[in-house]
Amino acid sequence: MDPKVGIIMGSDSDLPIMQAAAEVLRSLGISFELTVVSAHRTPVRMMEYATKARERGLKVIIAGAGGAAHLPGMVASLTPLPVIGVPIKSSNSIDGWDSVLSILQMPNGIPVATVALNGAKNAGILAASIIGSFDEHIGNQVAAYKKKLEEEVLVKIENLKKQGWENKFD
Amino acid sequence: MDPKVGIIMGSDSDLPIMQAAAEVLRSLGISFELTVVSAHRTPVRMMEYATKARERGLKVIIAGAGGAAHLPGMVASLTPLPVIGVPIKSSNSIDGWDSVLSILQMPNGIPVATVALNGAKNAGILAASIIGSFDEHIGNQVAAYKKKLEEEVLVKIENLKKQGWENKFD
Amino acid sequence: MDPKVGIIMGSDSDLPIMQAAAEVLRSLGISFELTVVSAHRTPVRMMEYATKARERGLKVIIAGAGGAAHLPGMVASLTPLPVIGVPIKSSNSIDGWDSVLSILQMPNGIPVATVALNGAKNAGILAASIIGSFDEHIGNQVAAYKKKLEEEVLVKIENLKKQGWENKFD
Amino acid sequence: MDPKVGIIMGSDSDLPIMQAAAEVLRSLGISFELTVVSAHRTPVRMMEYATKARERGLKVIIAGAGGAAHLPGMVASLTPLPVIGVPIKSSNSIDGWDSVLSILQMPNGIPVATVALNGAKNAGILAASIIGSFDEHIGNQVAAYKKKLEEEVLVKIENLKKQGWENKFD
Amino acid sequence: MDPKVGIIMGSDSDLPIMQAAAEVLRSLGISFELTVVSAHRTPVRMMEYATKARERGLKVIIAGAGGAAHLPGMVASLTPLPVIGVPIKSSNSIDGWDSVLSILQMPNGIPVATVALNGAKNAGILAASIIGSFDEHIGNQVAAYKKKLEEEVLVKIENLKKQGWENKFD
Amino acid sequence: MDPKVGIIMGSDSDLPIMQAAAEVLRSLGISFELTVVSAHRTPVRMMEYATKARERGLKVIIAGAGGAAHLPGMVASLTPLPVIGVPIKSSNSIDGWDSVLSILQMPNGIPVATVALNGAKNAGILAASIIGSFDEHIGNQVAAYKKKLEEEVLVKIENLKKQGWENKFD
Amino acid sequence: MDPKVGIIMGSDSDLPIMQAAAEVLRSLGISFELTVVSAHRTPVRMMEYATKARERGLKVIIAGAGGAAHLPGMVASLTPLPVIGVPIKSSNSIDGWDSVLSILQMPNGIPVATVALNGAKNAGILAASIIGSFDEHIGNQVAAYKKKLEEEVLVKIENLKKQGWENKFD
Amino acid sequence: MDPKVGIIMGSDSDLPIMQAAAEVLRSLGISFELTVVSAHRTPVRMMEYATKARERGLKVIIAGAGGAAHLPGMVASLTPLPVIGVPIKSSNSIDGWDSVLSILQMPNGIPVATVALNGAKNAGILAASIIGSFDEHIGNQVAAYKKKLEEEVLVKIENLKKQGWENKFD
Repeated sequence: MDPKVGIIMGSDSDLPIMQAAAEVLRSLGISFELTVVSAHRTPVRMMEYATKARERGLKVIIAGAGGAAHLPGMVASLTPLPVIGVPIKSSNSIDGWDSVLSILQMPNGIPVATVALNGAKNAGILAASIIGSFDEHIGNQVAAYKKKLEEEVLVKIENLKKQGWENKFD
Repeated sequence: MDPKVGIIMGSDSDLPIMQAAAEVLRSLGISFELTVVSAHRTPVRMMEYATKARERGLKVIIAGAGGAAHLPGMVASLTPLPVIGVPIKSSNSIDGWDSVLSILQMPNGIPVATVALNGAKNAGILAASIIGSFDEHIGNQVAAYKKKLEEEVLVKIENLKKQGWENKFD
Repeated sequence: MDPKVGIIMGSDSDLPIMQAAAEVLRSLGISFELTVVSAHRTPVRMMEYATKARERGLKVIIAGAGGAAHLPGMVASLTPLPVIGVPIKSSNSIDGWDSVLSILQMPNGIPVATVALNGAKNAGILAASIIGSFDEHIGNQVAAYKKKLEEEVLVKIENLKKQGWENKFD
Repeated sequence: MDPKVGIIMGSDSDLPIMQAAAEVLRSLGISFELTVVSAHRTPVRMMEYATKARERGLKVIIAGAGGAAHLPGMVASLTPLPVIGVPIKSSNSIDGWDSVLSILQMPNGIPVATVALNGAKNAGILAASIIGSFDEHIGNQVAAYKKKLEEEVLVKIENLKKQGWENKFD
Repeated sequence: MDPKVGIIMGSDSDLPIMQAAAEVLRSLGISFELTVVSAHRTPVRMMEYATKARERGLKVIIAGAGGAAHLPGMVASLTPLPVIGVPIKSSNSIDGWDSVLSILQMPNGIPVATVALNGAKNAGILAASIIGSFDEHIGNQVAAYKKKLEEEVLVKIENLKKQGWENKFD
Repeated sequence: MDPKVGIIMGSDSDLPIMQAAAEVLRSLGISFELTVVSAHRTPVRMMEYATKARERGLKVIIAGAGGAAHLPGMVASLTPLPVIGVPIKSSNSIDGWDSVLSILQMPNGIPVATVALNGAKNAGILAASIIGSFDEHIGNQVAAYKKKLEEEVLVKIENLKKQGWENKFD
Repeated sequence: MDPKVGIIMGSDSDLPIMQAAAEVLRSLGISFELTVVSAHRTPVRMMEYATKARERGLKVIIAGAGGAAHLPGMVASLTPLPVIGVPIKSSNSIDGWDSVLSILQMPNGIPVATVALNGAKNAGILAASIIGSFDEHIGNQVAAYKKKLEEEVLVKIENLKKQGWENKFD
Repeated sequence: MDPKVGIIMGSDSDLPIMQAAAEVLRSLGISFELTVVSAHRTPVRMMEYATKARERGLKVIIAGAGGAAHLPGMVASLTPLPVIGVPIKSSNSIDGWDSVLSILQMPNGIPVATVALNGAKNAGILAASIIGSFDEHIGNQVAAYKKKLEEEVLVKIENLKKQGWENKFD
């Protein structure tokens, strides 16, 4: 099946964070591809990836990067597709602020849909949510996913009640 | 035509910022509705708006709020639709940091697609971009919009060249 | 005895922090209940908990949450009871700033009594202090608690004097 | 009628911010007193005010201060009453961060119920809310106040609908 | 004379800040060109400008941008020339932090020589300084420029002495 | 010998940081006392300590505290002696910002001589420096101390030269 | 009378802030000198000023600077005298944070007694306080100054009482 | 061969960070020297080093320092050579912000080419890039270095493709 979501990241050292996006898409049955595209080290590849993404049938791009994180914004400038940006708290980041601000604060005309610091899982859910707006089956999947979150909490509440809060972490 | 995008904001004092989203959607020919929904002052209305949004045919929700901005995240918890959050630098905000962080830093499971501080225009473009992934006409519109941005800059470059930088702001 | 204080938190992973509130209330002989209520994952439960809190006889609600922490503010919007917010430095938080700002910076009309980052113990004392304003016995307990803090410091001062500062941490 | 709430502030230059607390209490029919107590310039007066507050019949103290704002925390260390702190963005403040942090980040044992930067109105509502937990009439007042907030928003929504968003700020 | 320094900026609205770089280069007799190159709105032009800069004889590129400022870093990834980045506190910037961090925090391999917020004048001096390391005449110019700064201060000191500090701003 | 410097701290848990002040004073032969004085938990003791400090012959007070750190400022409000404040990055601090700002940002009239975060050693040197302005022997000691810093660096430079930078940390 | 305090600043544009130090010293009868010394533009003058300060009879140096503010720290490295640093929120400063941090965060061995942002008045009082530790007359002056602060507040309290808070700013 | 680049640092404890600059210069065949020069502890040595750097044939100076980091700016005030500043997150730094701001925010006239926090490797590449603007061989080296970065990423992409993202970190 042709991938609907492209997951890209600036470096393979971002994979431990970014694979959460892949996992959530797989669990929701949404086809995707995952690769490394670096704005700074492979600029030509980045231009190609971004400019061909729509014609290749992608519906959403998820781009993760850290530090002075230019990948999500640069890709967004080269495609009409929605681009979800994942700020990564990489080792050279100043507590994540650089990653967050250089993805979030895009100028007028070129939005990036930014999620929380290291929020790759949420990027996957957001991509599913976008696809689900136009694909009823996926839309129901997302609704079910949020329902399941609720149920899991309700179970935990029951467990907490049974154990008592004093014994929970003993 | 039934609205495809719901633009909501926490207070009518947010309208001067948020109307940029409406204007860009109108210019791209995308139907939308615009109203006030306050998480803190009309919580029941918020629950109703969010839980019925999908069945009413909305495809995307744009939610703007300032300070401890809970509207985008709360709406996202109540609908499977993609929710775009616009942090607003309202008068009671600490330089916008509170608005940004309380919209961006959502927990796992409940993403909000956050755009730049006061970035309502970009929220509109992002909504168009999401719809355009599944509606070829709108997708082409978004591509044309980005193309036009480029052309406008090229014209400005010509003007700057003619006038000379020394005379530009004399 | 019916609980006077409701301690709620967004996730059971917040319990290691939040149980300090329970412990201080227990030590002061104030009845309380403790459970999980998530604004984002159990929004219906949250509405129910908050809207029924007063009629159930609660006097104060303590709500802890991390990241984009909406629980304290949303509960405050649904009850006339005083709500004490505990910002939690959860694993996905940006050094706690998101938790602090999304609890503290509530809009006019809907205050949350915010305590320090991870300050669950102080939330418990503040709850006791509120009850103690109207219950002389509890008020005296709080006064005695602060007195005891003083005495403990005075003992430490004596010990430090005896041991000498050079030997204190040898 | 003996005052139930003491509103104090570090300097009379804080009055333009702090009088919002007085106004909201007056509108809710709660007796209060308002004066200047400076931790740094009138430390003896501060100690006296704080240590006698409970026996004088006060139920809540609201303390506002800016910059290195020690008044709320010092008063809290000297009384078992609940102390609400209002961080003020005074002229010598670094964007309000100093005021917020020096009020919020109290050590274990001595909580201050902190509200938003310049949030004096919310301090008044919080005080009412505390009293309302034990005084049914006031409790109903606070519930009505929050209800009224909702109604005011609903009216604004109607107006916005009638005028249309394009005409709202013309 | 062929330009040795290329001054580029993301938008012509940056010109009021960036022209200080042009002025200082002109005063030092260093040839330069000045134009608009937008990473996000004219990505193709940016690639072309950057990849051809060295063969066109440029020795240094000065790039100014605000908000999520990707221009300096993207240009640096496409040329072996030294790139000086000027963070601009544009209207959509969060107090300049986004501009600073998205220019400064470049990943290993792709440095940008960042100067102070709005520091276009210093960017010009730094470019002169770089050229002056290899062109003795320019090197002497830069040395003379710094000497002149000293002399100007010494004159001001004399004036202050004559006027007296009390009268200086009367 | 009567103590010339009073070293106080808000809690004995601050001692591992604060003893660096004691050590440097001892090494410079300046008499001092060291004890715990808590603004929040022993307010009466604090008032007494501060108001009697001058008549007891102290020349300088060094006060260390963390979080909402009120001790240095409150002591400064109660004595004409110079007070040196040491912001401590205690466990409940938000990266030290609360400690720094609540000590540094004192209002007009009540200065605190603030040193770096955890800078207790520098507090000791500053105290010596103050005493050394009026006691020639101590003044010479401080001058010698700074001279020694220089010499130690020069020795390290020699060692680095001998070993070569590649071998330094092998 | 030979000056006891040297007030220096990085630029004569700092004078509007720094003259508050001069005024308070004049009012307390302490002799001082005031001039411009720039670490970056007059480094030789700075070295000379700092190295000769003690032998010229100065007891305290007050140094004000903004942005990357190196003057206070560099002077402190060149003299055994106590150096008081005044961070100035100059036009090129990022909200004052750069000025504060580059003065406050000195390395071990070279303290600067830092006061609040733009806190030149407090720098003057701190200098008086240092001299007053060894000059009983000045010490009494400082004590009287703090006493007067208290009295001024007490008068304001009386006025506020008479006028009523509602009428204060009408 | 006479050194073209001078690498200096405020303390030998900065060497583990700063040696990355040396390594990259060595790998590119650029002669350099490396030593310790402390602005605060060896101010005379610093003045000498900086004022003689140009006549000794150096083309670029790389200066690393942490905390209140004055070395890069002070050296820049004393030489017409380009100075590259490396902010170091030393143990006494507040998350690196002090180092970054006290190097970056230099006043008009005295630029420092600042690189990322702990970005010594990039400082080396930037120095090579500066020299490469005037030395074709080195310029080609820098171009080849950036090309190699691209190739390394392309190899990693191939590996990732072969292994599959699920197996990458198993």
